[in-house]
Amino acid sequence: MKLTKQHIEDDNKKSLSSQNNSYNFLANSLTSQGYNVDTIISKLSEFQVAIPSWALGAGGTRFGRFSFYGEPSTLEQKIDDVGILHSLTQTAGAVSLHIPWDIPSDYRAIKQQADSLNIKFDSVNSNTFQDQKNAEESYKYGSLSNTSKAVRDQAIQHNIDVINIGNQLGSKSLTVWLADGSCFPGQNNFQTAFQNTQNSLQEIYKGLPDDWKMLIEYKPYEPNFYSTVIQDWGVSLMLANGCGDKAFTLVDLGHHLPNSNIEQIVAILQLKGKLGGFHFNDSKYGDDDLTVGSIKPYALFLIFNELVYGMENNPQNPDLAWMIDASHNVKDPLEDLIQSLEAIQEAYAKALLVDQDALRTAQLENDVVKCQEILQGAFRTDVRPLLAAARLKTGGAINPLQSYRNLAVREALIKERGKNTVATGL
Amino acid sequence: MKLTKQHIEDDNKKSLSSQNNSYNFLANSLTSQGYNVDTIISKLSEFQVAIPSWALGAGGTRFGRFSFYGEPSTLEQKIDDVGILHSLTQTAGAVSLHIPWDIPSDYRAIKQQADSLNIKFDSVNSNTFQDQKNAEESYKYGSLSNTSKAVRDQAIQHNIDVINIGNQLGSKSLTVWLADGSCFPGQNNFQTAFQNTQNSLQEIYKGLPDDWKMLIEYKPYEPNFYSTVIQDWGVSLMLANGCGDKAFTLVDLGHHLPNSNIEQIVAILQLKGKLGGFHFNDSKYGDDDLTVGSIKPYALFLIFNELVYGMENNPQNPDLAWMIDASHNVKDPLEDLIQSLEAIQEAYAKALLVDQDALRTAQLENDVVKCQEILQGAFRTDVRPLLAAARLKTGGAINPLQSYRNLAVREALIKERGKNTVATGL
Amino acid sequence: MKLTKQHIEDDNKKSLSSQNNSYNFLANSLTSQGYNVDTIISKLSEFQVAIPSWALGAGGTRFGRFSFYGEPSTLEQKIDDVGILHSLTQTAGAVSLHIPWDIPSDYRAIKQQADSLNIKFDSVNSNTFQDQKNAEESYKYGSLSNTSKAVRDQAIQHNIDVINIGNQLGSKSLTVWLADGSCFPGQNNFQTAFQNTQNSLQEIYKGLPDDWKMLIEYKPYEPNFYSTVIQDWGVSLMLANGCGDKAFTLVDLGHHLPNSNIEQIVAILQLKGKLGGFHFNDSKYGDDDLTVGSIKPYALFLIFNELVYGMENNPQNPDLAWMIDASHNVKDPLEDLIQSLEAIQEAYAKALLVDQDALRTAQLENDVVKCQEILQGAFRTDVRPLLAAARLKTGGAINPLQSYRNLAVREALIKERGKNTVATGL
Amino acid sequence: MKLTKQHIEDDNKKSLSSQNNSYNFLANSLTSQGYNVDTIISKLSEFQVAIPSWALGAGGTRFGRFSFYGEPSTLEQKIDDVGILHSLTQTAGAVSLHIPWDIPSDYRAIKQQADSLNIKFDSVNSNTFQDQKNAEESYKYGSLSNTSKAVRDQAIQHNIDVINIGNQLGSKSLTVWLADGSCFPGQNNFQTAFQNTQNSLQEIYKGLPDDWKMLIEYKPYEPNFYSTVIQDWGVSLMLANGCGDKAFTLVDLGHHLPNSNIEQIVAILQLKGKLGGFHFNDSKYGDDDLTVGSIKPYALFLIFNELVYGMENNPQNPDLAWMIDASHNVKDPLEDLIQSLEAIQEAYAKALLVDQDALRTAQLENDVVKCQEILQGAFRTDVRPLLAAARLKTGGAINPLQSYRNLAVREALIKERGKNTVATGL
Repeated sequence: MKLTKQHIEDDNKKSLSSQNNSYNFLANSLTSQGYNVDTIISKLSEFQVAIPSWALGAGGTRFGRFSFYGEPSTLEQKIDDVGILHSLTQTAGAVSLHIPWDIPSDYRAIKQQADSLNIKFDSVNSNTFQDQKNAEESYKYGSLSNTSKAVRDQAIQHNIDVINIGNQLGSKSLTVWLADGSCFPGQNNFQTAFQNTQNSLQEIYKGLPDDWKMLIEYKPYEPNFYSTVIQDWGVSLMLANGCGDKAFTLVDLGHHLPNSNIEQIVAILQLKGKLGGFHFNDSKYGDDDLTVGSIKPYALFLIFNELVYGMENNPQNPDLAWMIDASHNVKDPLEDLIQSLEAIQEAYAKALLVDQDALRTAQLENDVVKCQEILQGAFRTDVRPLLAAARLKTGGAINPLQSYRNLAVREALIKERGKNTVATGL
Repeated sequence: MKLTKQHIEDDNKKSLSSQNNSYNFLANSLTSQGYNVDTIISKLSEFQVAIPSWALGAGGTRFGRFSFYGEPSTLEQKIDDVGILHSLTQTAGAVSLHIPWDIPSDYRAIKQQADSLNIKFDSVNSNTFQDQKNAEESYKYGSLSNTSKAVRDQAIQHNIDVINIGNQLGSKSLTVWLADGSCFPGQNNFQTAFQNTQNSLQEIYKGLPDDWKMLIEYKPYEPNFYSTVIQDWGVSLMLANGCGDKAFTLVDLGHHLPNSNIEQIVAILQLKGKLGGFHFNDSKYGDDDLTVGSIKPYALFLIFNELVYGMENNPQNPDLAWMIDASHNVKDPLEDLIQSLEAIQEAYAKALLVDQDALRTAQLENDVVKCQEILQGAFRTDVRPLLAAARLKTGGAINPLQSYRNLAVREALIKERGKNTVATGL
Repeated sequence: MKLTKQHIEDDNKKSLSSQNNSYNFLANSLTSQGYNVDTIISKLSEFQVAIPSWALGAGGTRFGRFSFYGEPSTLEQKIDDVGILHSLTQTAGAVSLHIPWDIPSDYRAIKQQADSLNIKFDSVNSNTFQDQKNAEESYKYGSLSNTSKAVRDQAIQHNIDVINIGNQLGSKSLTVWLADGSCFPGQNNFQTAFQNTQNSLQEIYKGLPDDWKMLIEYKPYEPNFYSTVIQDWGVSLMLANGCGDKAFTLVDLGHHLPNSNIEQIVAILQLKGKLGGFHFNDSKYGDDDLTVGSIKPYALFLIFNELVYGMENNPQNPDLAWMIDASHNVKDPLEDLIQSLEAIQEAYAKALLVDQDALRTAQLENDVVKCQEILQGAFRTDVRPLLAAARLKTGGAINPLQSYRNLAVREALIKERGKNTVATGL
Repeated sequence: MKLTKQHIEDDNKKSLSSQNNSYNFLANSLTSQGYNVDTIISKLSEFQVAIPSWALGAGGTRFGRFSFYGEPSTLEQKIDDVGILHSLTQTAGAVSLHIPWDIPSDYRAIKQQADSLNIKFDSVNSNTFQDQKNAEESYKYGSLSNTSKAVRDQAIQHNIDVINIGNQLGSKSLTVWLADGSCFPGQNNFQTAFQNTQNSLQEIYKGLPDDWKMLIEYKPYEPNFYSTVIQDWGVSLMLANGCGDKAFTLVDLGHHLPNSNIEQIVAILQLKGKLGGFHFNDSKYGDDDLTVGSIKPYALFLIFNELVYGMENNPQNPDLAWMIDASHNVKDPLEDLIQSLEAIQEAYAKALLVDQDALRTAQLENDVVKCQEILQGAFRTDVRPLLAAARLKTGGAINPLQSYRNLAVREALIKERGKNTVATGL
């Protein structure tokens, strides 16, 4: 199934006048307060978030999985799904492949398909947390940190293979998430595990093309429940520094201990020029992988406030790789992703409304009340008309979720693919 | 210092037309979606939150306290401060006394003063977590739960004294917060501590007038750091049930373990008819006592969503005692309270916008995506024009914080009271 | 494979004199301090913990599963495994079946097998968190709490079926753990979900034989990540009270928010006569299901201290159903269970060493330092010789883990069963 | 009051034979397992922990403070108290001064006093979290990170003053703990705050004598409740690296988010040669500052296991500054400190019993069960006879707490000092 511009344009018709009304009122109000609305709209239009190839199917937990109808069962179908998302939202112009779940069989064809949908290949992700059929070595006790050289070598080679795959598709970064760690005190020697990991990453780094980046994730726990080798941003940064200028830390919103101040981590990494990427999701307890913005939208806004600050004030920090990393256990995956994309754009738009000069002044005057007013003033603004306007500019839907339903996309997919397909991966 | 209606009306002038514009646009939009805006405005107007008498001065931490200028040093001055808040916000029409910090010397005079400011005396609070000068017994090892009958009796008598004070002022409820607990394993016998507390509360309950309520707080830790006698809502409810129909559980937002789902606690207590009161504040780590809505405004909205549901669907639950319970370490206390009051009204207004019928339908259809859309649709609405309209109706400020500054209230208070006053209590 | 008494007796020989030495030294020391060592040994011998039928195979996480060799693939083999554990440890004299994973095909045969191994059938567990093949209704959106009556009825009937299965085996209790809850705000109406659950449990309760108990678990999150219907002991207790005298709360150590004081929950439930069962495991972050005692052995001791207190002082509380509920991702499941059983016995033995009279006196004197000394004095005692002595009395191993390895049990199982067997269930 | 060797020797008499019995049995057992008991005893004897000068009085919380009788009211009395602790425990041979609470008036006299008690002056601590009387600038909005240069300069100068004071007493390190941070989102610019702090620390570092170290603490929250400038070890290490080779990270056990794996932080810092000091306490919820080992003794052991490993394998890491940092709200401070010192020695002794070679082998074989057995075997050993033997060697008490009570130390102090003294500081 392919959504055409015409489909969307037709569906937009019924809400167009209401959107225009709301937009005009808001734009006037913002303009009178000194904002340049066109600039904001442009920034929103340019902001694109990658969809990971594994996120198009239903997720699950260790207690089981409830499948969903019409899931994509091939890489081509997954890219089609991203195409649908991008048509509607105009902000999903990239896909992030997970290897070995999604190895292309015909690179040229797959690139053509993506091009035709205006989709780029963003960061490629390696997988050393599961054993693949017929693998010689097992990752049960770790991969890049394993005490066995043979296992480490297999994991290093896998990462280099992933780079090669990505290279043929135009990707420019490798994302490394390690499940490595231990379930019980004593199982690992922390220092050895760290050093093995450092050495392995350095080997992979040698295989990194000059114009690539290596993005290193951290996570405090799960699937290991006593320790993880890269437990926090501090360890990730150490490892990145130990590799070189092309290695960076990647922040996943769900990979933190309770009550962490993530926005401060983001700010300090940007100051040091070492924030490389960002995985979006939301959570209440742990790495819950819920829809972005569904639990703590204000925290998301505060993080975006730092990201916007960094993008404007930290030239030492590179452009970031943005990706959604959520699991969809009780929602249609495409609807879930539409909600996530909307929440990201909303937080970004509100962060763009923060008056940085006024904030700086209030901070210098220790006017704490004013500082809060400035942030909350931006957050309280209803920016939905701005997001719709940005989408409209390039042919997207005023209300992507509503159009998705009005246009009966899922029904069409089920017709095409049947009810019993299962996406590869999780 | 006393703020007159005229002061506020004058200050409102400059933003009146902008407010009218925004209000009309929003009201039209809401009306066209089927909302009855007048009803919402009325509900907002009626919603009054008590200011605790100790919240008018600067707070502190165990590491020290930085004082603030112009603090009220008498009960009369504290009530004046509440009067100022109420004039501006029209939602602070009650004061909650903390005994023994604020025992009136002349009941009639103090009642007259409060009446003249349109302020009621809400729940009275006992204090058995500190030793008062010349007290016979010490609360170092607990009060109502103490193993010593003499200590328990002193604490029981204090609570009865507090009831008597409140009774002379028109209060209708007693709030009991116990610091009782233990700092180390073994220090307390949990069962004995529970039973002593139950017995003590029953004694106090005997002294409760027929038209009064007893509100029992819970808190998992601090100032005791291993256990507290009333560690969660379950224990509070047990104790309330052990007292009788006039005893209820009081929820303080900051008194929960990390990641607690507070809104569900609120819902179940209302279902059982046992939610008696609510203390507002916000926090990131523990009982941080920050400005309401400053950290997790969406969580506050979700709680209000349950409160609104309960107020509409649970006649078995009584009217609630609402109070702000925050500490002001780096802000002008009055400004902090204005921000808190605004955040409460905002969350309430947004909860009133939740389409309960549509939500029920979506829930029955397991349309999880739609359920989220309904809640977030309400939350994303910028309700500030509604709040201002509700205030305007009864002579409040369009923008209370701005008026407070424009009218130089703090400067006037410093002139009246000097720089070195210190409020009683914390 | 079957371990005979002779196997174990032979293996014990090499450590017998060392054990006797240590035991005599410790027993003398304890006797001189006033302890009755024989009584302690008897209590340890009598303490039996059920092994759940799903715990004999390797566990996994949502990120995958690494299998283990020689796993039992039939219920008979699972009971054989419990037999091995019981032979070695003398404390695993019960099995707890999980339905529908382990429905006996021949009840008489299975009972005979269990009898021959001296193993009883403890609480039976229902499963309404997964969809079974060919099920008419899906539990994707809940089971006992589902808004659909058809789904609730299916789940109720399943529980009644489980009771009937258990009844034929001599079980005397049903354990109900619900995954029911919601992943997103708004998905559930909390009050409706509670009431549906209450009604469903009442239906099941009607089918409960007179000499049975219903044990209701609670859990704050996972697999639902916004709310669970039975989020804490307070809700579980409400539901149990709503069913009747045969319904109780079951505490699983891993089912709490961070920093919960579990020992106090245990104490209060016993005081109210409503603690029905206990699931053992350990965790650092969430419901990690690690080996008992591997992370927080002192917390386990503190809990046992309350359990021992309750068993001695709370006749209103029934005997408890004890079960291990852990997952084995990186250990041989049988070795993991041996370590868990040892940790449980250790904590129990140490709790039996707490001088309750001295503790009561110190508590009455508010001698906090002494209270701590008493608890830590018991905890610091090396009780391993007591545990070995208790095992020796009935033919168990001095060091069960060592004997398991010396006797090459796993190797024998692999020979019998092969490398590629997979246990049913998780 | 001064405890003489004779006092202690006399009091030891009644438990000497029992101690010798227990020691001989344990030593024989350990020797037969291959341990060199003399070496262990020597290491225990050499391990000395500093007592902070503020810890000799009762602590408190923001809700109040319950005082204790016989508190030291002068620096001389505080050092006397440390002398008492050291006489009894033989492991408290250092004091850590907190400035400006404990500025000596006569350096020579105070040094002589300390010498006579065999006490050294360990790290000196600056205080920029409270305003001192007559201070020109206020730290209400931060000290080393403040946006005002005048405030930063005052704080820098204070630290240099502290170095100078310490230098006259023989101290060799400065400990910097900053309360700096923010209570509300927006209050601080994270990047500016970091850079101001970095610059300020570099200024202080310039004033550091060549043979001194600068120890930088981190803490995630309190007294600021939204952010702290040095929120975790990663930021602390960045700042230390930004200063130079004499700057290190200091770990305080209570300064972590819930569920942190502290032992891994310790291991990685040692690997990098950047762990400079350690503050001991225990906690269940936050920075509860409870007696060491009173809540999580196994976690303490795991940390010591890493410390011992580092002391043996990381020559790149310097000797550490050890200090107790606890608050005593419901215990006699001296008794509390005796319990803390005992818990530290216990954890250290158990860590010394870990068979590092066997552990390494088990780790290389991924024998997770064995790894756990090795750690828990050490932890389960009752090492109290070893600790007593180490104390006896140099004239300490077999049971320090018992001797403290038998010798009626507190009663003597009350007689000397009266009931109403109050220690300076918190």
